[in-house]
Amino acid sequence: MRIAQEGDLVLLIGQDRTRFMVRLEAGGQLQTHRGCVPHDDLLGQPLGRQVFSHLGYAFVALRPGTCDLIQQLKRTTQIMYPKDIAYVLLKLNIVPGQRVIEAGTGSGGLTLALARALGTEGRLYSYEVRPDMLRLAEKNLEAVGLADRVEFKLRDIAEGFDETDVDAVFLDVRQPWLYLSQAAQALQESGFLGAIVPTTNQVVELVGALEAQQAFGQIEVEEVLVRPYKPVPGRLRPADRMVAHTGYLIFARKVSREVSQAGYWLDRRRRKYEEMAEEE
Amino acid sequence: MRIAQEGDLVLLIGQDRTRFMVRLEAGGQLQTHRGCVPHDDLLGQPLGRQVFSHLGYAFVALRPGTCDLIQQLKRTTQIMYPKDIAYVLLKLNIVPGQRVIEAGTGSGGLTLALARALGTEGRLYSYEVRPDMLRLAEKNLEAVGLADRVEFKLRDIAEGFDETDVDAVFLDVRQPWLYLSQAAQALQESGFLGAIVPTTNQVVELVGALEAQQAFGQIEVEEVLVRPYKPVPGRLRPADRMVAHTGYLIFARKVSREVSQAGYWLDRRRRKYEEMAEEE
Amino acid sequence: MRIAQEGDLVLLIGQDRTRFMVRLEAGGQLQTHRGCVPHDDLLGQPLGRQVFSHLGYAFVALRPGTCDLIQQLKRTTQIMYPKDIAYVLLKLNIVPGQRVIEAGTGSGGLTLALARALGTEGRLYSYEVRPDMLRLAEKNLEAVGLADRVEFKLRDIAEGFDETDVDAVFLDVRQPWLYLSQAAQALQESGFLGAIVPTTNQVVELVGALEAQQAFGQIEVEEVLVRPYKPVPGRLRPADRMVAHTGYLIFARKVSREVSQAGYWLDRRRRKYEEMAEEE
Amino acid sequence: MRIAQEGDLVLLIGQDRTRFMVRLEAGGQLQTHRGCVPHDDLLGQPLGRQVFSHLGYAFVALRPGTCDLIQQLKRTTQIMYPKDIAYVLLKLNIVPGQRVIEAGTGSGGLTLALARALGTEGRLYSYEVRPDMLRLAEKNLEAVGLADRVEFKLRDIAEGFDETDVDAVFLDVRQPWLYLSQAAQALQESGFLGAIVPTTNQVVELVGALEAQQAFGQIEVEEVLVRPYKPVPGRLRPADRMVAHTGYLIFARKVSREVSQAGYWLDRRRRKYEEMAEEE
Repeated sequence: MRIAQEGDLVLLIGQDRTRFMVRLEAGGQLQTHRGCVPHDDLLGQPLGRQVFSHLGYAFVALRPGTCDLIQQLKRTTQIMYPKDIAYVLLKLNIVPGQRVIEAGTGSGGLTLALARALGTEGRLYSYEVRPDMLRLAEKNLEAVGLADRVEFKLRDIAEGFDETDVDAVFLDVRQPWLYLSQAAQALQESGFLGAIVPTTNQVVELVGALEAQQAFGQIEVEEVLVRPYKPVPGRLRPADRMVAHTGYLIFARKVSREVSQAGYWLDRRRRKYEEMAEEE
Repeated sequence: MRIAQEGDLVLLIGQDRTRFMVRLEAGGQLQTHRGCVPHDDLLGQPLGRQVFSHLGYAFVALRPGTCDLIQQLKRTTQIMYPKDIAYVLLKLNIVPGQRVIEAGTGSGGLTLALARALGTEGRLYSYEVRPDMLRLAEKNLEAVGLADRVEFKLRDIAEGFDETDVDAVFLDVRQPWLYLSQAAQALQESGFLGAIVPTTNQVVELVGALEAQQAFGQIEVEEVLVRPYKPVPGRLRPADRMVAHTGYLIFARKVSREVSQAGYWLDRRRRKYEEMAEEE
Repeated sequence: MRIAQEGDLVLLIGQDRTRFMVRLEAGGQLQTHRGCVPHDDLLGQPLGRQVFSHLGYAFVALRPGTCDLIQQLKRTTQIMYPKDIAYVLLKLNIVPGQRVIEAGTGSGGLTLALARALGTEGRLYSYEVRPDMLRLAEKNLEAVGLADRVEFKLRDIAEGFDETDVDAVFLDVRQPWLYLSQAAQALQESGFLGAIVPTTNQVVELVGALEAQQAFGQIEVEEVLVRPYKPVPGRLRPADRMVAHTGYLIFARKVSREVSQAGYWLDRRRRKYEEMAEEE
Repeated sequence: MRIAQEGDLVLLIGQDRTRFMVRLEAGGQLQTHRGCVPHDDLLGQPLGRQVFSHLGYAFVALRPGTCDLIQQLKRTTQIMYPKDIAYVLLKLNIVPGQRVIEAGTGSGGLTLALARALGTEGRLYSYEVRPDMLRLAEKNLEAVGLADRVEFKLRDIAEGFDETDVDAVFLDVRQPWLYLSQAAQALQESGFLGAIVPTTNQVVELVGALEAQQAFGQIEVEEVLVRPYKPVPGRLRPADRMVAHTGYLIFARKVSREVSQAGYWLDRRRRKYEEMAEEE
């Protein structure tokens, strides 16, 4: 049976649903507004159990998953939602061992998820132009023991990326259309490009620039919506409110100029639309 | 610059959007209804380019991503959609090196995605009760070079799983509520449970059984919707039709009996609902 | 040019978006926390303009539409959302001159919309079992000058409806499946039945009872979602959050027993599903 | 009990779900590919029953509702979907007795719904620039006995509308932003403006023009989605696919120049957004 050991990250959730992330060390103490929890009460025990503060307040101890880790990040900016992170990881083909660029780093939410998915053999190059953000993200990744998988780079990406032949590039910046030639130079042929932008105006700009760049094909624009339900067996129903919008996701593949020009056939949706337009 | 080599999997997409998955070998030939494409035209070349059949028909060659690989699977059953696979991978905390159980294997769509995400150090135990399905999935995984990361097991999971202390269990079976004690026994404390079911009736059954089992907490029910857009800059709009439903996703954490009984606080949605019910 | 006259209902919206509904009378005064607005400042003027309280606080005066009127209702219960009301009016074929039953009245949100749509020649019979609710709804309809189009009836509808041959029946009660024979007796042949319920469990009960009753056909279950956008031209995007769920809408037509038994063909969705089930 | 009479419109639905709309006349015959149905078999009978062709093929006879009537329209253009029509009727405050303008008429789908909702005392002015479309819509409305509620006008609306002081204006044209001064001139103060456009680019144009026009306030942009379910009690679930997009709905109220300039407070969503923007 797996038990908690020194160095393990543990998530403690109190009865009022306050959450604490702890790295266990012998003799350590978690200080909360509801009393102290000695790490020694957790060490050598299985997780999934209750533990009590010296004031008798109950916490549940869980091994944190990627979603929990992201939720606990210190942040000064909006971070990507799990629903978007999950879809980006799959669409950009993020698997162990790959080399991936992201810009900008922000508070490090996607950074964390990428670093976990890439594993110890993979490599993440994370670019950010604001020094304070970069420092925050670095600290956040250090706190969860993932900083060594990431090269943090303080840089205006207009100057280009240092890497070439990377497997994937993800742009979470205000004007991603300004950096497409830089992205194309960094990407290997047939590599994966992704971006997230909150407004339709930005989608229009980005898709237009992707077409004009003549280095990308199979352009896709998608939104991910997650609808939560109240898990009550006798009264199953969706939650009353939900997140209606975080951002539009744009995906493309790096292709040769010839394919970019001729290769509209890669995109089922676009072609169909054009045919319809002609018929009008 | 990365070039295509013997043993590489390459995706060829024809002008009519027919897709072919090829494992390159010197002297090999792809036979299509539009003529033959010699592998040698691809070997030693970068991808993302056009290649022509002997009849002059054009194909684009791409390195396949996880979504491409899933799409190409031979199947006799409905397979999970990328939108659901992506979300399950994140919610179940699938990262390199973990030990994971899935049941049933089906045609191997989730199997493939899990195997890729777990990496060479991870281990997937895939249970299936129908021999023909198991064989198909095994072939499918072999075809993409991933079979060695998976232990395929022909088994009625009512008999239980062989493994213990696994990190996550995913159930894609008709009556997942019948196998919760088996799942609980296989999971490590605080481990991740997931399931997909198509109907609300099944959600009701499963959530009820999860509560009754007294081994699970933090029960969540969610749906993932992906809304595609027509990527035309001057006329940006959603596609006319979309997939409206694949299945409901249910998630829970393995916890102690005490937490399961007292730990309703783990679930924000359920608690709020109960409070509202009391107020009525 | 149309100007405001005595007896007109006017909606005043303050700068802090507080809303006041006023029935204009010469010499009247609207008292607000921001000062008094004399009705005489509105009488004889066109609407769509600003008017000021004696403290100089600005209000915009608008002619209220159905949505405004519903929003201003005094309520002690959840009322139906405009999105659902709108769809129900169309699906139940609510046009001027018809005779319609609703149960229960609740705070009178749907009552108000039905009364407006039915016009002076139509007739609404509104049943409610709680005397306080019925009184509230009656007052609400009086306040907007619509009470004379409605017959309010304090009644447990298990006892049946007084009317026969009505064009449509709408059930907004907890257990609509208990009152289907009463609804069938009140409805004319081929008449329209509608209901709203919040949980999937209730949908299952209701659809099952509709089938068992053998008096209904063309059963439909639908949800209406409205997604609002932030109307900013340079940054068009959906609102961050939206209403995710209010209720499931169920519709059916009164048909003969023979049609109910044989007439599954009326329902495209059900039939297709059954065919698929057979194929499994 | 209500029975079918001469002049009644009756909808016949065959076992293969083919639909026929019939206006009953003594001695009349419905010719179908499955044999003839004599009108006399329907006259004097209640609806909701089966009727058979001379070849023994079964049809169900129903009184058509607004949705049925729209579905049966002869069309050469896309017509508005019931979900959008329903919401527009409510948001534009379409009740019996009002005077309303729509442009363009198209095949007459919204025209039909407006004419029904306005009743005999209301008046609809329907503008269309293409003579063939106008003729088709007129025929469509005649076929269902509603043409006398509508004034059809062959006109390029750039020349303006003939009416003033109307209660509502709805624009279903490609470039609605070109006709806002015409709409403002026709609308009474505080009147209701609505429009539908398929692309985000058009929404951006229209909202920008609405702001620039300084004659409108309370601008709203919304989408309506209807999610159908398979109504099978033991296996309740959404349909597999759904309509993902028809158009964006834009609503506004005619207001004075002063209100248009100062009255941003009318719009909760816009204001909140601007505050957030300032905080950035």
